[in-house]
Amino acid sequence: MYSFKNDYSEGAHPRILEALIESNFKQDEGYGEDCYTRKAVDLLKERMGRNDLDIHLLSGGTQTNLTAISAFLRPHEAVIAANTGHILVHETGAIEATGHKIISIEVEDGKLNDSHIKAALDLHTDEHMVKPKLVYISNPTEIGTIYNKYELEQLSRFCKENNLFLFMDGARLGSALCSEESNLELSDLGRLVDAFYIGGTKNGALIGEALVICRQSLKEDFRFHMKQKGALLAKGRLLGIQFLELFRDNLYIDLAKHANKMADILRAEISRAGFRFLVNSPSNQLFPILPNRLITDLQKDYAFFVWSKVDAENSAIRLVTSWATKEEAILAFIEDMEKALEGDNVILK
Amino acid sequence: MYSFKNDYSEGAHPRILEALIESNFKQDEGYGEDCYTRKAVDLLKERMGRNDLDIHLLSGGTQTNLTAISAFLRPHEAVIAANTGHILVHETGAIEATGHKIISIEVEDGKLNDSHIKAALDLHTDEHMVKPKLVYISNPTEIGTIYNKYELEQLSRFCKENNLFLFMDGARLGSALCSEESNLELSDLGRLVDAFYIGGTKNGALIGEALVICRQSLKEDFRFHMKQKGALLAKGRLLGIQFLELFRDNLYIDLAKHANKMADILRAEISRAGFRFLVNSPSNQLFPILPNRLITDLQKDYAFFVWSKVDAENSAIRLVTSWATKEEAILAFIEDMEKALEGDNVILK
Amino acid sequence: MYSFKNDYSEGAHPRILEALIESNFKQDEGYGEDCYTRKAVDLLKERMGRNDLDIHLLSGGTQTNLTAISAFLRPHEAVIAANTGHILVHETGAIEATGHKIISIEVEDGKLNDSHIKAALDLHTDEHMVKPKLVYISNPTEIGTIYNKYELEQLSRFCKENNLFLFMDGARLGSALCSEESNLELSDLGRLVDAFYIGGTKNGALIGEALVICRQSLKEDFRFHMKQKGALLAKGRLLGIQFLELFRDNLYIDLAKHANKMADILRAEISRAGFRFLVNSPSNQLFPILPNRLITDLQKDYAFFVWSKVDAENSAIRLVTSWATKEEAILAFIEDMEKALEGDNVILK
Amino acid sequence: MYSFKNDYSEGAHPRILEALIESNFKQDEGYGEDCYTRKAVDLLKERMGRNDLDIHLLSGGTQTNLTAISAFLRPHEAVIAANTGHILVHETGAIEATGHKIISIEVEDGKLNDSHIKAALDLHTDEHMVKPKLVYISNPTEIGTIYNKYELEQLSRFCKENNLFLFMDGARLGSALCSEESNLELSDLGRLVDAFYIGGTKNGALIGEALVICRQSLKEDFRFHMKQKGALLAKGRLLGIQFLELFRDNLYIDLAKHANKMADILRAEISRAGFRFLVNSPSNQLFPILPNRLITDLQKDYAFFVWSKVDAENSAIRLVTSWATKEEAILAFIEDMEKALEGDNVILK
Repeated sequence: MYSFKNDYSEGAHPRILEALIESNFKQDEGYGEDCYTRKAVDLLKERMGRNDLDIHLLSGGTQTNLTAISAFLRPHEAVIAANTGHILVHETGAIEATGHKIISIEVEDGKLNDSHIKAALDLHTDEHMVKPKLVYISNPTEIGTIYNKYELEQLSRFCKENNLFLFMDGARLGSALCSEESNLELSDLGRLVDAFYIGGTKNGALIGEALVICRQSLKEDFRFHMKQKGALLAKGRLLGIQFLELFRDNLYIDLAKHANKMADILRAEISRAGFRFLVNSPSNQLFPILPNRLITDLQKDYAFFVWSKVDAENSAIRLVTSWATKEEAILAFIEDMEKALEGDNVILK
Repeated sequence: MYSFKNDYSEGAHPRILEALIESNFKQDEGYGEDCYTRKAVDLLKERMGRNDLDIHLLSGGTQTNLTAISAFLRPHEAVIAANTGHILVHETGAIEATGHKIISIEVEDGKLNDSHIKAALDLHTDEHMVKPKLVYISNPTEIGTIYNKYELEQLSRFCKENNLFLFMDGARLGSALCSEESNLELSDLGRLVDAFYIGGTKNGALIGEALVICRQSLKEDFRFHMKQKGALLAKGRLLGIQFLELFRDNLYIDLAKHANKMADILRAEISRAGFRFLVNSPSNQLFPILPNRLITDLQKDYAFFVWSKVDAENSAIRLVTSWATKEEAILAFIEDMEKALEGDNVILK
Repeated sequence: MYSFKNDYSEGAHPRILEALIESNFKQDEGYGEDCYTRKAVDLLKERMGRNDLDIHLLSGGTQTNLTAISAFLRPHEAVIAANTGHILVHETGAIEATGHKIISIEVEDGKLNDSHIKAALDLHTDEHMVKPKLVYISNPTEIGTIYNKYELEQLSRFCKENNLFLFMDGARLGSALCSEESNLELSDLGRLVDAFYIGGTKNGALIGEALVICRQSLKEDFRFHMKQKGALLAKGRLLGIQFLELFRDNLYIDLAKHANKMADILRAEISRAGFRFLVNSPSNQLFPILPNRLITDLQKDYAFFVWSKVDAENSAIRLVTSWATKEEAILAFIEDMEKALEGDNVILK
Repeated sequence: MYSFKNDYSEGAHPRILEALIESNFKQDEGYGEDCYTRKAVDLLKERMGRNDLDIHLLSGGTQTNLTAISAFLRPHEAVIAANTGHILVHETGAIEATGHKIISIEVEDGKLNDSHIKAALDLHTDEHMVKPKLVYISNPTEIGTIYNKYELEQLSRFCKENNLFLFMDGARLGSALCSEESNLELSDLGRLVDAFYIGGTKNGALIGEALVICRQSLKEDFRFHMKQKGALLAKGRLLGIQFLELFRDNLYIDLAKHANKMADILRAEISRAGFRFLVNSPSNQLFPILPNRLITDLQKDYAFFVWSKVDAENSAIRLVTSWATKEEAILAFIEDMEKALEGDNVILK
């Protein structure tokens, strides 16, 4: 059984483990004031070509989302998110638990644009309603689509004009940046969004997200918020060491490229076999629409999510690749798919 | 410079790192549904001789405290804690941020007893005041003292009689259980408290606390609370693997014993040199009262907290030992202390 | 200028003011422990034919919604509401501010049924999502529609089967119960919902909503929640006196009947003039679709909300009647409408 | 039985009720946008000689405290209050329920000074602890003492220097301002505190507190916070009409003076009878220390709280006067006390 269920099925990239071993017996400060964390933060700033960024390392996506958003907003302020937004459905009300409403916007492709946000602003006009203040986007989105530079610039301009914060969930940011369809650089983000994070957990680390706060007014006292939300690890070095290793050279980017390359092969082969996709996702998550009988066949040897029913005979499944996905596994999956198709004599649309 | 500042200055016990490497490329489920976590939980139940316990692995102490306490209480219910309680001062209002007041009880030795709690109950009599519902204790306490079995039994009985939950912060539980003055077993806790945790971060793990929920009514839906508070790690295996390694044999206990033994040597030698302690702490935190000049001397080569001013010429410092503390370091410290005393001709009281 | 904007444009029914004067100099207990409140509660129980109800008097709708819902739910539990639900859009995130997500259900007529709720339950399957626990309905709904007995019985059965609380916002409950289309009695509610409130503010009182808690498990400690949310008035008698007066005889029902009667006349006359309604609302809120030119004409002498644009030339407006609406005002409105139609030679559809 | 239990035992001053009747059938806007509220706000600004104040009318003290404090603070910021502070013990954790810790300062006379606050600041030094940000004082305090102008100026200066907000709970502000020992004017407050409120409930109104926000940065969006906390009454005119009446002429001050005058007589007579007081309170709350036997005698005809046990034979009681207290009642109380003393032959200290 090989799993394409997600990008956190394995441990960490071996270099991460080596770095942990290497540093293991050196004494250092706790709570993220260690030399590894400081170096990692410096490296990240350098990589983004700016010194005026505040960077904090946290453990996971939900924790980062809830700590950042609750730190940025006043009690009556609300978040605008696509209906696919991770915070909206898949984080057990973590944002609401800090007191803030999320305004859901119905979208097809997981992406928000100016007119979506304008519509939400137009509906929230006075003190009997929440005040929309932060726009939450994910890149890639939860269904694998990505924002290109032009789209993000438009969104950024609109948010600035309307005094809204733009926050980017980057749990899979590596895959977005390395996508062939992307023309965004890490260094663009400091200018285009108010805060974002660089996901480590799904790209080679054991745990870890690097939150980058770009807007000056959002920086103050952020470590208080981390501590209050249980996000300040006593052994903060665990996070520092990992990000240091991921960004010491090009490892982070190389791992994301590998994940995307594996997805590219899968996508091409599934297309070639005549299948369509629920959504055009140029990153490491694919949503092919397959005949239910084929899905049942594949489930014997592969683990993946059945995402949604498309019609009586076909469903979309989710296949996720990662830094750890082996090319052999991809090829075996393709081969098994083809074999199943032949055996079943499935009529393709 | 050798640090006695705390018990999280180094990484993890080497066996932990080996276990991470060993399992690294095995695919498994996310969010704590992996085989390692399940095995670790089974082992812990076995160790406590009971099957009717719910056990969850979380990342750190503040996270565990805030997730558990907010899950256990209704909005108007409050916590009773000693004024030294970690949640009261050193967690940036994490409990209050979930909506609950902590009622502070002034104590000398960090320990609560029946009469303290009774006094708090007597003061909270109607709906104009919060309703005290959960008693928070730490073992060892934040100043290194420990509860013996008799004391805990008294407290447990009182809480049961008064329909209060008894919650034990066990960030340093290993040191309490292994203290020479303790007659408590891990297996006693399931019977005496409603929930507690077994701290891993300060006893050999990179991160990790094992929360044990003993009272039936507190178990329901706990994973929802974990997810909502950002405490459900995508790679939950990181926690499972560590607790599996710590409890596969006697490693957890051995590491705590080592920490205590190092503290015992320090305590004995400091006493022998004629110094008193701020508090009689039989665990891995010591609070010797030393002349300020001696402290300044020692600070050249050793890192530690100056805890409190005792009089014009003396202060209490905090020395913490851990699984990673080297006996050489202890002996060197003692030697350097003695040298400094000779050199300074310090007059001891 | 006569206002049909809402049902809280005037003060209180004169009998309410007389009751306040009558009792003004009698000393009594504070915080709702006065004799008036106790009598009002007894009267309400009698009216519902049950003694096993807990009844609390609060100041307004938002306060009642947030106090009750936050008292009833645990942190990970969520509310299900129609997209028109008052708590969803028009209470500034009051429910989310207490930590709970509201799951929005798209409906046409403001009313929830079993299949709506089932769909929400089917989407919330595990601990990565909130746990739906309370169904919030309004009767009448925010667009004036009402639940009949059969519909409410269906909903009640479904909620019981699925272990959900059913909560009814009754800010305009009088109008629902007195509607010609209703076959619900006040005494049915204790059996069909877990909690509901009887709105006073919009039916003759200065302020005041009577929350009735029917389900045993939701009753405990409710006054603590009221105090914590600022809902326990020092002069609680202000609420008690008003509900005592409203329910001492048939005043509450008489006032609601009057409001409905005024709406009935308006509805009939507007229909007779050839206009349709956005929604079929048998209570004291009407949503006629009128030509924009007619609306402009009417706005010279009447205040009301323009609710929504229907097409290029027509919009829906909201007309609200109340216990204080004068029949002359209704007749004058009709007359002015007819005059405007004649003058304008408006072509009716 | 005559009650000295509190200052909210009766209804409202008759002029308040007349004003309600007078305006009862005039239609006006809801939610505090009516002409009465606007006029009341203008009058209050005029009375304070400043136009740059934001004034909002709320229902009660706890509601005002929780709405204002939660609106003013960010999540990690805390309140400093005297251990007698109403929000600390007598509001069921209302402030903590909005997420904020209250740091308690032990004081004798209910009053905070610079050194108290400095001590709290010195203890809260980094992100592991909450950040003290708002100083909460009550004037009069919960034990009847008052701040004079000099004390308040000192406190104000200290707070400004330390970037702290100074918030004054004025539930009984009238009594403080009219106390013979006070040299504070209402117009001083705009300059000395960042926000405060003028209590109506305990000085002639049915309900109502006028919150005055003086600091520019705290004004923004305050009505959103009111709505979110259930503090925006649909019939906001109920509050406006009352404050308009109280401040249309000198009624508010006259009522407070009456309450104080009644207290002055009581205080003088009790002193003359040879009894001491628990605390020197120059406002409308008195805490005489009386022999237990005398207390028992008095309880036959008078209602009051027994505040605290002083020694085996004496206790302090609380006597509260108000705008509604009748001089006859005071004189009768004194007479009955004297009779009881004679009858009992009580030995005075």
